[in-house]
Amino acid sequence: MARINDNFLKLKAGYLFPEIGRRVAAYTEANPDAALIRCGIGDVTEALPKAVQDAMHKAVDELGDRDTFRGYGPEQGYAFLREAVAENAFADLGISADDIFVSDGSKCDTGNILDIFGPGNTIAITDPVYPVYVDTNVMIGNTGEADEAGRYEGLVYLPCTAENDFVPAIPEEKVDIVYLCYPNNPTGASATREQLQAWVDYALKNDAIILYDAAYEAFIQDADVPRSIYEIEGAKECALEFRSFSKNGGFTGVRCGYIVIPDSVFGTTESGEKISIKQLWSRRTSTKFNGASYPVQRGAEAIFSPEGKAEVAALVEHYMANAKLLRDACTELGLEVFGGENAPYVWVACPEGLTSWDMFDKMLQEANVVITPGSGFGAAGEGYFRISAFNSRANVEEVCKRLKALL
Amino acid sequence: MARINDNFLKLKAGYLFPEIGRRVAAYTEANPDAALIRCGIGDVTEALPKAVQDAMHKAVDELGDRDTFRGYGPEQGYAFLREAVAENAFADLGISADDIFVSDGSKCDTGNILDIFGPGNTIAITDPVYPVYVDTNVMIGNTGEADEAGRYEGLVYLPCTAENDFVPAIPEEKVDIVYLCYPNNPTGASATREQLQAWVDYALKNDAIILYDAAYEAFIQDADVPRSIYEIEGAKECALEFRSFSKNGGFTGVRCGYIVIPDSVFGTTESGEKISIKQLWSRRTSTKFNGASYPVQRGAEAIFSPEGKAEVAALVEHYMANAKLLRDACTELGLEVFGGENAPYVWVACPEGLTSWDMFDKMLQEANVVITPGSGFGAAGEGYFRISAFNSRANVEEVCKRLKALL
Repeated sequence: MARINDNFLKLKAGYLFPEIGRRVAAYTEANPDAALIRCGIGDVTEALPKAVQDAMHKAVDELGDRDTFRGYGPEQGYAFLREAVAENAFADLGISADDIFVSDGSKCDTGNILDIFGPGNTIAITDPVYPVYVDTNVMIGNTGEADEAGRYEGLVYLPCTAENDFVPAIPEEKVDIVYLCYPNNPTGASATREQLQAWVDYALKNDAIILYDAAYEAFIQDADVPRSIYEIEGAKECALEFRSFSKNGGFTGVRCGYIVIPDSVFGTTESGEKISIKQLWSRRTSTKFNGASYPVQRGAEAIFSPEGKAEVAALVEHYMANAKLLRDACTELGLEVFGGENAPYVWVACPEGLTSWDMFDKMLQEANVVITPGSGFGAAGEGYFRISAFNSRANVEEVCKRLKALL
Repeated sequence: MARINDNFLKLKAGYLFPEIGRRVAAYTEANPDAALIRCGIGDVTEALPKAVQDAMHKAVDELGDRDTFRGYGPEQGYAFLREAVAENAFADLGISADDIFVSDGSKCDTGNILDIFGPGNTIAITDPVYPVYVDTNVMIGNTGEADEAGRYEGLVYLPCTAENDFVPAIPEEKVDIVYLCYPNNPTGASATREQLQAWVDYALKNDAIILYDAAYEAFIQDADVPRSIYEIEGAKECALEFRSFSKNGGFTGVRCGYIVIPDSVFGTTESGEKISIKQLWSRRTSTKFNGASYPVQRGAEAIFSPEGKAEVAALVEHYMANAKLLRDACTELGLEVFGGENAPYVWVACPEGLTSWDMFDKMLQEANVVITPGSGFGAAGEGYFRISAFNSRANVEEVCKRLKALL
């Protein structure tokens, strides 16, 4: 009899965004005329940059001619994209094209990376957190059961609160793997150089590995905020970095991301032998992946062209101006507001007496605005909600108006 | 200290195709003027169908206009594609759109599917076999170490030989999960209705699950050969089917495939509770995947348009005529030849005294033709080599000429 992976049964009812989708679908079915504005899932809304479109069109045409046709590409990504990434996103940081592993997106990468790690690791995650980090650890058996607050036995939770500016304190205990995401989803916080240096120092001291998710790097406005973990001394010996074209290039439907793995990051076998993480990931990639779509990789390459860079800058400016409007509206209402300055998310304390899901339902039903309940990101997210700045200007202005009418 | 997944160390030196790549690269570096013809990796060579190109162009244009822009799609695939698949590929077989899970390709799917199965399963694979089935089981810890012939402890190997027409006999022992691939990679064999019925009956009797890889379905010429496992009575209670657009639509670089999972396939928990495989896979997909690229899914949909179908038929005809030329050439040379009648692979016994890798090196160095050594697909593949029919007509004719000059 085929045995299933019992760890799946430990998962809470639903992955956050499908659950939001279900509630929204039920509401819109009952209220078909409601003019819903979606600021829930962090999904871009503006058109794909022209430079990307042009590159994708050209790539499709190449595939349409047998003389320029390409079949299977390198599993780790085409050299043209790996080189463009290394030169543009990591100039002067000592990262080479060979360190870049191209994928169909960071969600896949942050889940799949666990394939190369063994059991027996102590894993730390921030709370609140992007649910994928937690759920993929549950699925692979790195946790016990969840308690009533949704905290899984065996994970080390690092509370991110207003008191610590949503950057977790260095834990007293020893952990082996830690997920950090800055600029942060969901809180919109950014981490300073000193805060990241403390984490790198901790990792080096404890032979831990930092899984650094920098999917929102493009939204950093403050020149002092590090854009990559590799700006921090020692990070090339202990950190992987996840990057995505989803939010800067509008690739949420196009699908492309990458992991950076320097040669100098190692894990150990049960018997204590040091093994290169890059070598393991490369093998995993050769066996379980067949490369990202060729036209998609050409589109991603175009992000780094002069035209692409200008268009991305305009998109970032658009979304960050939205974030400012949302911040200002919530501040005016007397709400406690975080984030939105170096990230496209505004993180807001719920009005007194409302839980996160109360606020979600209230916003959905009374203002016809979809937000994300903070508790969906973890127990420490209770009492907050996230507003995404990914929207048209008109919609954001309307959301601000509805917020003011509601509260 | 971060612990790696020690199972990776059990893997043999390299995944087959990268190893071939390394030998070919070394040869071409030493012999830069060699006019190499590649019949190794089963990679298509002809242009992407016009219907697919047009659909992809249109989809890119849609993303270029904010009014028709789409961001994150449904993780399980867009309804337009799931419906097109159900209606066209599984008409009258009782498969609904809801049973179709769209992905970025079958290589990923056949590896990732193991996420939802637990430890403790007895897993059977044919020998020779597509290496991904084996290596992904090794990586996830379903095997012990490999012996000298490359057979991993704990797997049940089902020899496929000329004696059983490369369709394995039903095992005497009880297995929980069995991989079957027909038309077969690498042997080019197809399975009859009776042979598949025997496997389905076995699976039903033993509560086993069949992972049926039908990536080469489009190449079936014989009307009596089943194109889907769901043509077999009882299969909807015990089988998943993997399909790909790589070989019919020329999508090896575009990336799209899907898994079919009927509602009526179940596995069990440790305590014996029955759990829907579809429900598990859907959850896995929501958490660890973000949908296939939108323009790619539109391209795949176009495969089922009248124009797309006509173009795919022409591609299949082209490659199968190549296969006939290769079969005939090898037969004339007195070699023992299999496959190539309902599959784009010709499976040939090596001339006496030559191992598979001997033959690979001889063909590479003396004929400048890249083939695949049979032993790369498993111990029972020793003494055979595979020639891929994916090529231009001119190249295939030249390969036939070189074969005749060589042997």
